[in-house]
Amino acid sequence: MSRTKVVLIGAGFIADIHAESYHRFVPDAELVGVYSRSEDHARAFALKHGIACWFIDLGEALAQTDCDVADICLPNYLHARVTIDAAKAGKHVIIEKPLCLTLEEADELITTCKAHNVKLMYAEELCFAPKYERVRQLVREGALGSIYYLRQCERHSGPHSDWFYDLNQSGGGALMDMGCHGFAWFRWMLGAETKALSVFAQMQTGLLHGARTRGEENSVCVVEFDGGVVGVVENSWAKLGGMEDRVEVCGTGGVVYADLFMGNSALTYSEKGYGYAMEKAGSTQGWTFTNFEEAFNQGYPQELKHFIACVRSDTPPLTTGEDGRVVLEMLNAAYYSARIGEKVSLPFRPTVSRPIDLWLGNESPSIRL
Amino acid sequence: MSRTKVVLIGAGFIADIHAESYHRFVPDAELVGVYSRSEDHARAFALKHGIACWFIDLGEALAQTDCDVADICLPNYLHARVTIDAAKAGKHVIIEKPLCLTLEEADELITTCKAHNVKLMYAEELCFAPKYERVRQLVREGALGSIYYLRQCERHSGPHSDWFYDLNQSGGGALMDMGCHGFAWFRWMLGAETKALSVFAQMQTGLLHGARTRGEENSVCVVEFDGGVVGVVENSWAKLGGMEDRVEVCGTGGVVYADLFMGNSALTYSEKGYGYAMEKAGSTQGWTFTNFEEAFNQGYPQELKHFIACVRSDTPPLTTGEDGRVVLEMLNAAYYSARIGEKVSLPFRPTVSRPIDLWLGNESPSIRL
Amino acid sequence: MSRTKVVLIGAGFIADIHAESYHRFVPDAELVGVYSRSEDHARAFALKHGIACWFIDLGEALAQTDCDVADICLPNYLHARVTIDAAKAGKHVIIEKPLCLTLEEADELITTCKAHNVKLMYAEELCFAPKYERVRQLVREGALGSIYYLRQCERHSGPHSDWFYDLNQSGGGALMDMGCHGFAWFRWMLGAETKALSVFAQMQTGLLHGARTRGEENSVCVVEFDGGVVGVVENSWAKLGGMEDRVEVCGTGGVVYADLFMGNSALTYSEKGYGYAMEKAGSTQGWTFTNFEEAFNQGYPQELKHFIACVRSDTPPLTTGEDGRVVLEMLNAAYYSARIGEKVSLPFRPTVSRPIDLWLGNESPSIRL
Amino acid sequence: MSRTKVVLIGAGFIADIHAESYHRFVPDAELVGVYSRSEDHARAFALKHGIACWFIDLGEALAQTDCDVADICLPNYLHARVTIDAAKAGKHVIIEKPLCLTLEEADELITTCKAHNVKLMYAEELCFAPKYERVRQLVREGALGSIYYLRQCERHSGPHSDWFYDLNQSGGGALMDMGCHGFAWFRWMLGAETKALSVFAQMQTGLLHGARTRGEENSVCVVEFDGGVVGVVENSWAKLGGMEDRVEVCGTGGVVYADLFMGNSALTYSEKGYGYAMEKAGSTQGWTFTNFEEAFNQGYPQELKHFIACVRSDTPPLTTGEDGRVVLEMLNAAYYSARIGEKVSLPFRPTVSRPIDLWLGNESPSIRL
Repeated sequence: MSRTKVVLIGAGFIADIHAESYHRFVPDAELVGVYSRSEDHARAFALKHGIACWFIDLGEALAQTDCDVADICLPNYLHARVTIDAAKAGKHVIIEKPLCLTLEEADELITTCKAHNVKLMYAEELCFAPKYERVRQLVREGALGSIYYLRQCERHSGPHSDWFYDLNQSGGGALMDMGCHGFAWFRWMLGAETKALSVFAQMQTGLLHGARTRGEENSVCVVEFDGGVVGVVENSWAKLGGMEDRVEVCGTGGVVYADLFMGNSALTYSEKGYGYAMEKAGSTQGWTFTNFEEAFNQGYPQELKHFIACVRSDTPPLTTGEDGRVVLEMLNAAYYSARIGEKVSLPFRPTVSRPIDLWLGNESPSIRL
Repeated sequence: MSRTKVVLIGAGFIADIHAESYHRFVPDAELVGVYSRSEDHARAFALKHGIACWFIDLGEALAQTDCDVADICLPNYLHARVTIDAAKAGKHVIIEKPLCLTLEEADELITTCKAHNVKLMYAEELCFAPKYERVRQLVREGALGSIYYLRQCERHSGPHSDWFYDLNQSGGGALMDMGCHGFAWFRWMLGAETKALSVFAQMQTGLLHGARTRGEENSVCVVEFDGGVVGVVENSWAKLGGMEDRVEVCGTGGVVYADLFMGNSALTYSEKGYGYAMEKAGSTQGWTFTNFEEAFNQGYPQELKHFIACVRSDTPPLTTGEDGRVVLEMLNAAYYSARIGEKVSLPFRPTVSRPIDLWLGNESPSIRL
Repeated sequence: MSRTKVVLIGAGFIADIHAESYHRFVPDAELVGVYSRSEDHARAFALKHGIACWFIDLGEALAQTDCDVADICLPNYLHARVTIDAAKAGKHVIIEKPLCLTLEEADELITTCKAHNVKLMYAEELCFAPKYERVRQLVREGALGSIYYLRQCERHSGPHSDWFYDLNQSGGGALMDMGCHGFAWFRWMLGAETKALSVFAQMQTGLLHGARTRGEENSVCVVEFDGGVVGVVENSWAKLGGMEDRVEVCGTGGVVYADLFMGNSALTYSEKGYGYAMEKAGSTQGWTFTNFEEAFNQGYPQELKHFIACVRSDTPPLTTGEDGRVVLEMLNAAYYSARIGEKVSLPFRPTVSRPIDLWLGNESPSIRL
Repeated sequence: MSRTKVVLIGAGFIADIHAESYHRFVPDAELVGVYSRSEDHARAFALKHGIACWFIDLGEALAQTDCDVADICLPNYLHARVTIDAAKAGKHVIIEKPLCLTLEEADELITTCKAHNVKLMYAEELCFAPKYERVRQLVREGALGSIYYLRQCERHSGPHSDWFYDLNQSGGGALMDMGCHGFAWFRWMLGAETKALSVFAQMQTGLLHGARTRGEENSVCVVEFDGGVVGVVENSWAKLGGMEDRVEVCGTGGVVYADLFMGNSALTYSEKGYGYAMEKAGSTQGWTFTNFEEAFNQGYPQELKHFIACVRSDTPPLTTGEDGRVVLEMLNAAYYSARIGEKVSLPFRPTVSRPIDLWLGNESPSIRL
């Protein structure tokens, strides 16, 4: 069987991680093209990663590469449209989180993919991060007894790309960017049959990036699940010192703590500093947590390898568009909770253009439950 | 100046820690008596700690020892009555957390102490724990810039003494027992002039101790403060593996993580096991976190040394009955929030016999705001 | 180009790790056969790893599989003979550490491989372990200034297989088994042009395994290098609690600490215990350090991927038979030092059947310098 | 009983730690005077610590304060003379490590103290550091089975005071300064009846301080004990990033790791930096290990409290001049070993002016065994 052809839609930070992951760990995939809205970025990316073709026209990228899979690494507001275009072009889709901006978009892209008989694979890498997967196995082995509490925390000092800060492109701030990981990971840990019942959220803005965005910079959410489990998600765009991604799981028979970055690192003291310690680390003078194999440890190669295998064997992916839609629903509930100061029950299907509007109140959302 | 005479009211777990603390670190104090409701406990405690007199009658304990200070280490439901009795007997009072069961009791004991011109010192040891005090100094030095987020977590597998599980004696479960630490510590970190605006709480019961109590075993609270700071308190009576007490502080200029138990320990692997690793550790076979100087590291000697110094120099203590009352108010708000699923604004002055009733709904509280 | 055919010579613990590594991470390799002296082991191994053919005759394994590479995972005393047989059969050789038992064997196998124009690749995985490679990069970036001190420590509670304890098969105990890692890693860190000048060693026996072996169970070596760097290697077969593998590098501009096992793990408390925490962990009740991707983190897939790439592109491997021979020389010097209580200068070329005899004094080695 | 009067002989770094320790933790002691060779230092020290009298004449300091105890915190070369003067003046002596420069001096000061019936207390604080004492208790409880290996490591970037770098005042470099801790701690852990049999050492110079001293900056020693236990001591004056003091103990039944500084700290990231993280930390920008109660955690208050109690109750101290002399003997053996590249057997009684001369070979030591 020949290699599965993948075209990367996007040439930014995440696309770079995807490209490295395919190249080093997914031999069954072949990167046949990259698309960017910027010609310079597309060209440079293709050169850096040894990709034969680069495009600034999406239709050409999909058609001329004869690709099997479109791997979409674009700003959030483009997720739906491009997924739909790719599906209509008969391409399987890998879509980065969060799924898209509205539940209507989510419905449409899920339906379109089904209608065109293409796979829709939701790229939630925490479901594949090897340390977190070991944690999930521990739980399945019964090591912790009956789980009652989960905590997931992802924090750093703010994304690199400008679009995150433009709420029309991102749909929200730190929660939109990273809270989706926590929500998805809770569902993954508990099993999809354990429904989330409600979300409470508290948000803060104007911490480090107030001059460039109204988006929330710090967020804490409390999620209730059917059966009594509670999960807490903490996200920040205002935490200095490098990437932080950690989980805790408490059960009646035990507890586990797992830390993806600081908990995997070498500990270095350097008077002069050096090139790179970890994602978003800032200065490397003094003490630093020196990471290695960051993509592998976060689960990117493993998720992409899984998706390509699903395409090749025509099996359903472990993380789907439906999963992404539930997560989006929970994100919406969180924003609305932050506004009204109450738990918001699920299901929750507001009509709103950007999830954050449920918090900021830019419009009167009509809440259909 | 002769030593300040202290009578210990109570002979249980905390009284034991207090006694060791006085003996080793507070030379200006002299333990002149111990009271317990049980003759066996009183006698054994006196013998163990070399205390001259033991009592099973409170009045006698206060009168016959000619004590200056009554250090009250009794079940929560006795806090108010005994504080009032001690104040009326002209004794300064050290009262262990939480202050008492109701705001009415709190008002009364505060007023009585004032009326009898005795000091009322609220024993919140986290305000004195050396590692946490270093953290507070860091913040005051400006090391973290402007703080926006605090997290305090205390968890273990459940208290030793039976009374905790009897809601008539305790007033509530894990939050009542340990959430008061987090609430007090946040106020201590931010300064009393930074008012708590609201509390949201999510509680769980029936985890490890469901057979013996309806009290909450796991609790997470989100506190909003005036000025925008948010604090999260996590407490559990269902976490195995030993005591856990840790904090995080996030600011616009930095972050700090501090762990009182596992973060201070020696790391031991023992095939056979040994005597004692840390508070509530369970088995000592296999890997354990071996602690040392637990009382010192939690702040007990430092708080008692401070209180005795206040008595000797007639200066006001750093942690007062008023602090304890605000914390009780926040506890009440948390229980009510857990019931209604909404943030509860402060001030919050319900009339209720036991804080947990605001959650369990045993009676219809009349909420006076 | 078709896949490189590899036959595994051996079906024990290390062969299992190699097989998993090829299967998951080295798509250019194809495992075409496995050899074991035991028919049961060969058959079971082939079944477990989906290998088409199994053999109990080495000649057949080499000839009938039409393999390109023989990957030798056998007891130390067989390393030389089998390498020579494989080379004579025209197969490239991957030889697990330590290289062999005597310098004469080392000379012969290096010469034979050269004569038959096959690659000889010395499988020292620490030169490929991703965390340690990041450390090496740090040093090359100048992060630590000028290095003056290295420490490498590998300890556990003793190997699984019986042959390690039979000195005729192993050639020595903990140092022979694991000290080769430290010696090789120091040379890798400093560069082969920085010669080791001397070795001092102190050894202990009769700790946990005294009933089954005279081999050393604990060993500490001090190595001097040309230019003034000093390295310390600590090895033990008598350390409970699981695998330990850590390094430290001190320089005039900084320091780095890296821990491969405990430093990469999730931290778990389990009342009941569970299946597997880490290599040689023992009990999983209580606290454990739960590892994941152990082969990847130790460098096995990376070294095998490198070797296969060298075969395919006809380029010299990073770790060679010559490297293995220098390490063997250092091992010999260490054993002799342990006997005479002095540093032993390099080069050191004793004639002795088993390195440990230089310590145990079973025969009078004639020392040719 | 009135307080025990102590005069501090010295007003430098260690004297400061002693003063803080007495003031905060040893109520039975009263600091009645401080002596320094510098009038400015003496005056400033007295002011800072609230000590009534300061002196620049040693005789006056001893006579006019009517002190009971002379606590000697002076450069090494003055230890013997001042101890003898204090003993002749009838004062009990606390002498900081290392005991003195020569075994002759050691004999004389021990004899003089005996002759004048004053206590000689050797201030080795590692025998009192609470975390290390917990480790020792663990061993005594049998938690680790039969011990076979000890490791003690103390490293930093070099002392503050100039005299350390002048070999005529210090007698040696990093080993003289800190190796005494490791040697003493091993004897303390194993019990004085377990004799050290030999010492091997490897030393390096010219790392960070080569311009100002010929003293060794990095040192590793291997000590053999009667009964088979081996200890390794690592010391450095060229390790950046702050104080490091850690131990490991391996036994047939377990293992323990204990870290006094980084292992007790809060973990801080500060963009701007702040006042003080830990002893010898350097910059406080970026990540730092923020310590607290450093004196308490290193054992200074506990050792001084013990010494004062010994004076008050006329009981022998746990750490004596004889202990200090054995340690000095081991230091000498280490320096000589570093020169000849061999283990040096104990007892070892060379005649030499400065221990380091046994390594540097400034004179021909006559070695009397």
